[in-house]
Amino acid sequence: MRENLRINEERFRRDFDTLSKIGASADGGVDRPAFSRAHSKARRWFLQRAAADGLKTFVDGAGNHSAVYHCGRQKARVLMLGSHLDTVPSGGLFDGALGVLASLEVLRAVKEKGIKLKTDLEAIDFSDEEGRFLGFLGSRALAGDLKTEDLNLPPAMKPRFRKALDSAGLTGQSILSAARKKAALSGYLELHIEQGPVLEAQNKDIGVVAEITGIRSFFLRFTGTAGHAGTFPMGQRKDAGWAAASFILAVRRILLNRYSGCTATVGRLHLEPGAANVIPRGAVLSLEFRSGEAAVLERMESALLSEAEKTAKRYGCRLMITPTEKTPPAFLDPSTQKEIDKACRRLGLKSMPMTSGAGHDAQVLARVCPAGLIFVPSAGGLSHSPAENTEWKDCVNGANVLLHTAVALGKKEDIL
Amino acid sequence: MRENLRINEERFRRDFDTLSKIGASADGGVDRPAFSRAHSKARRWFLQRAAADGLKTFVDGAGNHSAVYHCGRQKARVLMLGSHLDTVPSGGLFDGALGVLASLEVLRAVKEKGIKLKTDLEAIDFSDEEGRFLGFLGSRALAGDLKTEDLNLPPAMKPRFRKALDSAGLTGQSILSAARKKAALSGYLELHIEQGPVLEAQNKDIGVVAEITGIRSFFLRFTGTAGHAGTFPMGQRKDAGWAAASFILAVRRILLNRYSGCTATVGRLHLEPGAANVIPRGAVLSLEFRSGEAAVLERMESALLSEAEKTAKRYGCRLMITPTEKTPPAFLDPSTQKEIDKACRRLGLKSMPMTSGAGHDAQVLARVCPAGLIFVPSAGGLSHSPAENTEWKDCVNGANVLLHTAVALGKKEDIL
Repeated sequence: MRENLRINEERFRRDFDTLSKIGASADGGVDRPAFSRAHSKARRWFLQRAAADGLKTFVDGAGNHSAVYHCGRQKARVLMLGSHLDTVPSGGLFDGALGVLASLEVLRAVKEKGIKLKTDLEAIDFSDEEGRFLGFLGSRALAGDLKTEDLNLPPAMKPRFRKALDSAGLTGQSILSAARKKAALSGYLELHIEQGPVLEAQNKDIGVVAEITGIRSFFLRFTGTAGHAGTFPMGQRKDAGWAAASFILAVRRILLNRYSGCTATVGRLHLEPGAANVIPRGAVLSLEFRSGEAAVLERMESALLSEAEKTAKRYGCRLMITPTEKTPPAFLDPSTQKEIDKACRRLGLKSMPMTSGAGHDAQVLARVCPAGLIFVPSAGGLSHSPAENTEWKDCVNGANVLLHTAVALGKKEDIL
Repeated sequence: MRENLRINEERFRRDFDTLSKIGASADGGVDRPAFSRAHSKARRWFLQRAAADGLKTFVDGAGNHSAVYHCGRQKARVLMLGSHLDTVPSGGLFDGALGVLASLEVLRAVKEKGIKLKTDLEAIDFSDEEGRFLGFLGSRALAGDLKTEDLNLPPAMKPRFRKALDSAGLTGQSILSAARKKAALSGYLELHIEQGPVLEAQNKDIGVVAEITGIRSFFLRFTGTAGHAGTFPMGQRKDAGWAAASFILAVRRILLNRYSGCTATVGRLHLEPGAANVIPRGAVLSLEFRSGEAAVLERMESALLSEAEKTAKRYGCRLMITPTEKTPPAFLDPSTQKEIDKACRRLGLKSMPMTSGAGHDAQVLARVCPAGLIFVPSAGGLSHSPAENTEWKDCVNGANVLLHTAVALGKKEDIL
């Protein structure tokens, strides 16, 4: 390994600044929802940049956009490097974009330095990571994890989904055809911003992700009794808002006391009928919680939902629980983690093992090949916001760790 | 006073059943928002019924609909009996309608029995009591309590308000012209359902309202910091939803412990951005509280708002407070209350003094003449709901108390 091997920092920066303008919003962020005009423009631009530097490019049946560097060996497996160019509405500049551009930069560096690898390298931009229609659409299609019925979205979304696929020249059939043969994949690496405050707080340069948390989410409805806000005595009320408020604080208390390192969030809450002078008869709220351990998820679910039952009883309300998501934790490849750690040492960067609280394409790829996920710090832990920021030196560090790890894995291919 | 003087129970019932069909909703309630087609139809029907029984009728510049029985004296003052025929959306059959029909029934009874009074009697249906556009529009206009600027509604409501006035043949000018001379009014009496559970719980037939509570209301906005629900550690969050939840429970606790008999309600709550996987950066809620005593309102305001400040601090949030309503308590006429009590004793009904937690046209009239308000029980305390109900015998009791009180006051005129 060449100790002084680095990506081209200036070109990386130029590309990043150009990409940041595609779908730029007035508040300094970007709006590139999956299959939107800005998103398609960014993807086309990405392939043009790759082609201009002599890389092969292609788009698969799921709309994943790829640039490929062939190592020259016949029937070589492929080491994929990637992330996504779509964003949440009013998203930031770094979430996804950083990983795709760093992947392209790695292919360029390997090509320019004439480094001999035993695998092909592919820089890939996955479709709809953020789940405008179907989260991880592109990576799930590639991993062979989609069935026809998965593409059967709720009626309210169907027309817009069909229109989006049409605009990208995709069909349900083409999406399913994007599945790769497991034997063709040697591994997957992704560079991403942390989207949390841990690296910054711990003063570390790089997070080596060991696992991606599982998620369970629910809608809870507390039903009490409406009444006139001026005439119904406080002591006789069955105010569904009281039950919801008490539950929100109980979730906080239970997590802080008994599930340190896990998260639980009530991000939506709606009171019915929702008039200032009417006692709420209904309170509907979203509850989601995450842990890297399946057994902990199970215990949290039972603790939180039984707390909800007790709360409902205490305030004279009925409770209805509707599950909405159940994603198990994903574990990333230990030997890939070791290679990322080695790369950090070689580059003089301080790394730490981490759990990712957010979902990433890496968790989908982990089902079909050894997968690794590299984090760089997020300023203030902010993400999914125009205020999202990562110091440029951290972006460069992350790209160099991606480069060194990819080269090490690409050279090791024969012993895999 | 004739001990056996009673309204015509059967005619009263027939009228009530006919009126209940005007704007009837499928769920057993009525929809007669102010100036709607159903509302106008109900008002026209009311005047037709009055005219058919030989009463004079007229509509004033504020759209108030009146039936009048003249006592025959020149320049007699008028004793008004009334309420309103408009309802909240999805309202009940009794709120307002009961009082208007009972008033009409009193005029008919006085006329049929040839009772000699010293005042004229007027049964009046006030415009927009429920505040579709401007609460107490009709009674405020009549009491000379409206100025041109009061009719200058927010831009969002203006076009609908103008259209509503057009449909009723009203203008801003005509509304202001509806003000009566104070000297022309001898008093006001209103029969209304309680809209709360007190009479039922105390097993009383009639509530004699001594005061109508004052209302203060506010919008409160807690502002924290948004973040990714999966990545931002629980211990570092500034979740605006936590602050709102804690405040809601504090309001409940403070009211139950320190302000027995008063009410405080959080009926609206909105989390921002309102996504299941984003920590709420904002929580906006409505707070309203009521008391019959101005000094208590003042103390509650200071206790609740300072609690909000403390709560915001505890959860690392900022707080913004916007006042939205400040209505002082209204006191009803003591000698009218005595007459209502006497009428109850004469009729063998159990009465109790009460505070009204809801607003009524009586509080507006109280500013210009001696006003009285008579309550009958609401089943389960329910109101502003299709499930609103009052036993028919209670409706009849209320109408008879209204009749006996009106006759007593109408005969006393010369000593007022």
